[in-house]
Amino acid sequence: MRANSKVTLLGAGPGDPELISVKGLKAIQSADVILYDALVHPDLVAMKRAGCEAIYAGKRANNHRFPQEKINQLLVDYALTHGHVVRLKGGDPFVFARGKEELEHVETFDIPTEVIPGISSVNLSGVYGIPLTVRGINESYWVVTATTSSGALSEDVGLVAQSSATAVILMGLGKLEKIVKQFMLNGKYDTPVAIISNGSLPHAKVIYGRVDGIIEQKRLSRIETPAIIVIGEAVGTHPNFYEKVKVALDKTETSFAI
Amino acid sequence: MRANSKVTLLGAGPGDPELISVKGLKAIQSADVILYDALVHPDLVAMKRAGCEAIYAGKRANNHRFPQEKINQLLVDYALTHGHVVRLKGGDPFVFARGKEELEHVETFDIPTEVIPGISSVNLSGVYGIPLTVRGINESYWVVTATTSSGALSEDVGLVAQSSATAVILMGLGKLEKIVKQFMLNGKYDTPVAIISNGSLPHAKVIYGRVDGIIEQKRLSRIETPAIIVIGEAVGTHPNFYEKVKVALDKTETSFAI
Repeated sequence: MRANSKVTLLGAGPGDPELISVKGLKAIQSADVILYDALVHPDLVAMKRAGCEAIYAGKRANNHRFPQEKINQLLVDYALTHGHVVRLKGGDPFVFARGKEELEHVETFDIPTEVIPGISSVNLSGVYGIPLTVRGINESYWVVTATTSSGALSEDVGLVAQSSATAVILMGLGKLEKIVKQFMLNGKYDTPVAIISNGSLPHAKVIYGRVDGIIEQKRLSRIETPAIIVIGEAVGTHPNFYEKVKVALDKTETSFAI
Repeated sequence: MRANSKVTLLGAGPGDPELISVKGLKAIQSADVILYDALVHPDLVAMKRAGCEAIYAGKRANNHRFPQEKINQLLVDYALTHGHVVRLKGGDPFVFARGKEELEHVETFDIPTEVIPGISSVNLSGVYGIPLTVRGINESYWVVTATTSSGALSEDVGLVAQSSATAVILMGLGKLEKIVKQFMLNGKYDTPVAIISNGSLPHAKVIYGRVDGIIEQKRLSRIETPAIIVIGEAVGTHPNFYEKVKVALDKTETSFAI
């Protein structure tokens, strides 16, 4: 082990490189090795100091650079041989990420660890005037990943549909049909929906609709991953919600841009 | 209106001043006026440039410096007379905050606005080795505020207690008895609980327990606001959960510190 052997699990934030924390940027600038994921902006990796190795360890859909076991091993090996390893993940490292597994593996080698949280993509909604909660309308929001067994999605969606919660669905664009079906099964045909793609980047795109029309709007807009899906009455409080949905229904494709 | 009249709604993050975003710090350093809330760290306000006015506009429980209408008015007045106003709020400005109301008021005066998100206190849980979701255990988390506009406990807490979601309850320490009752009504006596107080600051404190014992542990630990309450099976995956609860039950008070 080296004197400065350490693994820092760091959240890069939701896309825009300037949305990393000040503390996170300092960690990048002190790293000896950076292992970064697919959704990390290249400008952040470029902030590394001279001599720091940057290794891509990303996973997008079925295209994994390394299996999880290999990442766990690399973290340990580099911490022992090189010193300070920064494990850089998009968003927050504990929201539907395998940060916990990685840290526990590292800790079995008595290597010190630190966690620096990041802004989750969940919090991008407000940037577009879509609050997750609005006084007098609702008092909670529910965050779920669509990339797991759909069983849990269906069971909890029923409870969410009875509640005032805004649903925030991560990694769900490819399963939009299944998600919409669950809301319809609970009678929520008219509930407002927004899909925010690349939420904090210059090419961000947002589409607005209702549960029963959002699949068609997704098709017309050709909106892309990474995206978050927000479903709930709070979405309808966007000052231009009705106008935006109407324009979308007129199928003026260019109107989908924000 | 001045050439640089603008209101930036900015999330300061969950306590530690270094958890603000790089973009957020730049906004503070370019502000002509900063209106800041109670949970904002003083070191952040101190980063303002010479000549920038800093105005405390905080609310803690029933001790409000200004009513909301006054804050809305100050944002407009200062933007018109001074230029760039930064509205600085703890955590993320759209999580159970009145950011939306403030922005909409400002926009009626045609003053440009910007939103810079912040790390929410929801994301502090991972810092203490408590993930909100764990593969194979649960696939969602549900964030609820305990302090509704009517003062009653949100009815959503009862639905959260029925779900598989990890419950993250903000501003709930004063209503812990009522929250616990909702979980017990759903048979969740044994469900693991963590309470994280001042989560990213040097005097942070975390207590661990189960639904049926957490009130006594809260009393013994004298844990204070601001705090988040995390309830769910995922909390029990903390590597030292059983040990920490046992020590707490032995009532060794000093063991409550993390």
